[in-house]
Parts: sequence; C-alpha cells; structure tokens
Amino acid sequence: MVDAGAPQTSIAIVCGGGTIPGAVADAIARSGRRPVMLAIRGWADPNLVERYTHHWIAVGQAGRLFRLAHAENCREAVFIGTLTRPALSQIRLDWRTIRMMPRIIRAFAGGDDRLISGIAKLAEETGLRIIGVKDVAPEILVPQGVLGRYQPSARDRTDIACALDLIATLGSFDVGQAVVVANNYVLAIEAAEGTDNMLARIASLREEGRVTTPKGVGVLVKAPKPRQDQRFDLPTIGPQTVANAARASLAGIAVAAGNTIMADPADLIAAADRAGLFVVGVSGGQCRE
Amino acid sequence: MVDAGAPQTSIAIVCGGGTIPGAVADAIARSGRRPVMLAIRGWADPNLVERYTHHWIAVGQAGRLFRLAHAENCREAVFIGTLTRPALSQIRLDWRTIRMMPRIIRAFAGGDDRLISGIAKLAEETGLRIIGVKDVAPEILVPQGVLGRYQPSARDRTDIACALDLIATLGSFDVGQAVVVANNYVLAIEAAEGTDNMLARIASLREEGRVTTPKGVGVLVKAPKPRQDQRFDLPTIGPQTVANAARASLAGIAVAAGNTIMADPADLIAAADRAGLFVVGVSGGQCRE
Repeated sequence: MVDAGAPQTSIAIVCGGGTIPGAVADAIARSGRRPVMLAIRGWADPNLVERYTHHWIAVGQAGRLFRLAHAENCREAVFIGTLTRPALSQIRLDWRTIRMMPRIIRAFAGGDDRLISGIAKLAEETGLRIIGVKDVAPEILVPQGVLGRYQPSARDRTDIACALDLIATLGSFDVGQAVVVANNYVLAIEAAEGTDNMLARIASLREEGRVTTPKGVGVLVKAPKPRQDQRFDLPTIGPQTVANAARASLAGIAVAAGNTIMADPADLIAAADRAGLFVVGVSGGQCRE
Repeated sequence: MVDAGAPQTSIAIVCGGGTIPGAVADAIARSGRRPVMLAIRGWADPNLVERYTHHWIAVGQAGRLFRLAHAENCREAVFIGTLTRPALSQIRLDWRTIRMMPRIIRAFAGGDDRLISGIAKLAEETGLRIIGVKDVAPEILVPQGVLGRYQPSARDRTDIACALDLIATLGSFDVGQAVVVANNYVLAIEAAEGTDNMLARIASLREEGRVTTPKGVGVLVKAPKPRQDQRFDLPTIGPQTVANAARASLAGIAVAAGNTIMADPADLIAAADRAGLFVVGVSGGQCRE
C-alpha cells in the first residue's frame, strides 16, 4: 500500500532494448515505487517507456543520465535491456562523459564485464546507487526447480552439469553465457552472435546432417559468467527462446536459478509445455572428467 | 631414391573428405614409400584416391580396414581428412567391429577425442601402428613464423595470445579448435559448426551491425586441443579459410606451428597476400588477466 501523503520512492530504470525494461517498471510500480524511465535512444522501445515518466538519453551521455536521475529524485538506478556494443556513430558525448573518458576507455578495453562495472562505479561517485533486478523485481527471475510440465532426464542432467562447468570455465574470458550440450558433446558456444542465432545454427547443422545427435537430445544452458557483476546483463529467456530450442530439436532449457530473467513467464511456460520441452532453474554443477 | 630391387615400405592412408589425403599420399610417394588408400565411402574423394592403390571401406568396418592394411603389407597407417560424425544409417558393421562394439561405444560416449584415440588403440592391437602427418608429410604442416607478405601488429599478437589461452582452457571439454578474437574481445568460438561457418557468422554479424569492431581488426586462431592425440584431426587451413577470413574483415590468421595442416600452401599464401591478411605459425601464449 502506498501512503498517498508521503513522497513515493523513485527508481531510475536505464532502459536498453527488449520487453524486460517494461516488466521491471511494472514490478517497481506494483511494489508502490515510482519508475523513471531513462530510455537509451536506438535501443529502448518507445511504446514501452512512454507508459511511465521518461526521458531519452544517448549512449555516451553519462552526465545527462546522472543529472536526470537527480532531478527526478532517484537515489537508485537499475540498468536493464539489451545494448549491443554501439557503433561510434551512435555515441553522443556530453562534457561530464568527456571528462570521465580516460576511465571509460580503460573500462572499454576489458570487454563487457569491465565496461559495465566501470560505468556503475562512475554512477556511484555521483550519488546514484546501481541496483540489480533481484533488488526491485525478484518475481521476474527464474526460481529453482522445474517450471512447466516436463522434467529433465538423467542424461539431460549430465548435459546440464557439463554445460554449467563449461560456462564457469569460460568466465575469465568474458564470453559465453550460453552453450548447447547434447549427450556430453558440446554443440555450440555463444559469443557475439546471441542465443537465438546459436540455436538457429544448430537447427541448420541438423538439416545439413552435420549434427547427428538424435532429435530430442541436447540442452540449452544459460548462466551468468562467474565474474559478472550480477546487477547487469543477466541472461534472459522468453517464449522465443523456447521456440528456437524446439526448432533445434533440444530436450529443454536449464538456467541459473535466481540469476536469469524470464520475459513473459506465462507464455514461456505454455510454449514449453506445447513443445514438450522442460525448463528448469538450477544451481552449480561439475561434470568434467 | 628408391631401390627398385627392395620391396617398398607401404603406408595405409585411411582417407576422409577434402584434399588433404591426396597431399599426404603425394608426400609419402615423394619420399619413396607406397601409399595405400583406404577410402571411407561417403567422405573420400574418388578422383583423389584413385591415383594410388585403393580400397573402399565403410564407417564401422574396422575388421575390413585391418585386413586390407595387412594384405597390402602396411605396418603403419595414417588417418586423415574430414569425417563429421556419421549418421547411424551410414555405418556398416563387420563382425570384428561388432565384437569390439562395447569398447567402441565407450569411446564414443566421450566425444571426438576419446573416439579417435579408442580406435587407434584397437588398431594397434591388430599390429597396425597409427602414425601422424608429422611422421609422413611434415612439409604440409605450417612452420613457425610469418608465411606471406603481411605481419601481425602488436594488437594482433595480443589477440593471438588471448585466443591460444582460450583454446587451451576449452581443451578439457573436447571442443573448439578455432576462435576469433578482436581487440581482446572474443567474437566467436567454434564447436560443431566448423571454421567456415564460424567465419561466415562474423561476416553476417558485421553486416547486421552486431559486431562493431573496426574492419581489419581481429584474428582467426586455430590450434589443436591440448589433450588431443595429435596423430588425428589436426586443424587445417587452406585458401578457402583465407577467403572467409577476408570476408569477415579480419587482420589475419594464426595457427599452431607444426600442428596445423596447410591445404594448397602456394594458393593459400597468394590468397593472403592478395587480401592483405597475415598468416603466421605460432606457439604458446597467455593473456588472461
């Protein structure tokens, strides 16, 4: 319940692409707080951000971002949504950002992990605390356990453990939140292409006869990189992920419980049940020989 | 020089797909030994194997393979050429193979590494020694150093070291002989799709604006997996690899010196010089933070 007399707590949502920023804003509003959308031009969906108080910012306008958050009485901000590495032509710098440039460039040189945690550090110096989805919208994170009607088999569980171990091993390279393992055999590792592209590749390789594992064998596993700052860039699954996993003839999907965002959970589960795929939230696991 | 009076040493070449089995046979013949082609039906190129004494075998005919090698006086065999995992319908079993089945199945369960070393072990029990390309055709392996006109830059060398380290790390998962790293950022890791597919993916991601590293930055690195039995399945590059790397706007190609096969070396180097790409044989390297 919100006390109409007291000023509402405002939370800035720095919005990248996709539907998740909207789901986070809805969750914040449901909990009686006021979402302020700081929408990144070129990535954020206008229809979605316009449902709440919003301002447009460009990549590179860190000064404007901090100023807007302050003007809107936000002490906390959550960064959410897709933001593929922008091209130089999409970047608009403001003076504050230019003054921070040497540090931003140092952060850039280290891959995504360092870029986003570098930006969080800069924000916190201006008095804006960066929080995670876990803090404001835990209900959109995948819980532990099976979500739909189907269960992973013992073989699927072995593949899941192997995949989690592989993702953990890749962690120090700032790459790979997702892999596909079938019958203990690694079919694909995601890097710059994204999960949907990776799953489409497996479907094609099957058609070409270059992947010969039987249909219905193989698991998509997504988990945050071990060193990843979990306030940013959590893995995400949605109904589209299920559709692509079904097209790749996989048995199911396993994700890190508590650290993976669900887009449209009801549709996701309905899609999995229709396709005969399991969806499970898991934690940990080792399978290397 | 071959002493026409003495019986020639015969070497069996178990031929998969591609042009490399022909190059190995030519090298064996040039050194005064007699190549005997045991051509795997569905993979080996008929035009190529018919230039020498040859027999056709199917996947699964281990008994026939050992019998033919023995009948042709071969004490040594080299396995060479591509052999993507066959579908069950392509496998023809003979009795000897069936008797070995329990052990072959155990080898199969462990991914490529264990499959091929399992088969080598079975061969050696019948008195057929499995040797590597290094032993019979060292001239088709990439030597240490720069091959063509172009040199890797300092940044390219950092990317190469990072990629070699990543391949070493992936070794225990029996995956990934090839990766692409650009400006310290991992763009792609090869699994079941093969190098050509991986490079085509980078070209597409660039066109879609999803890879924004400048053109001419990024290196394809291929190296054997650390636990790999180097008598089998060495990484291979050829003119096609250069063409695909150029299409992906990379700076060049680095491969493990002494452990990578060159298809058509003269064409490969000419293609690299025309495209402005470097090709270099390297060893070792570490770059992780």
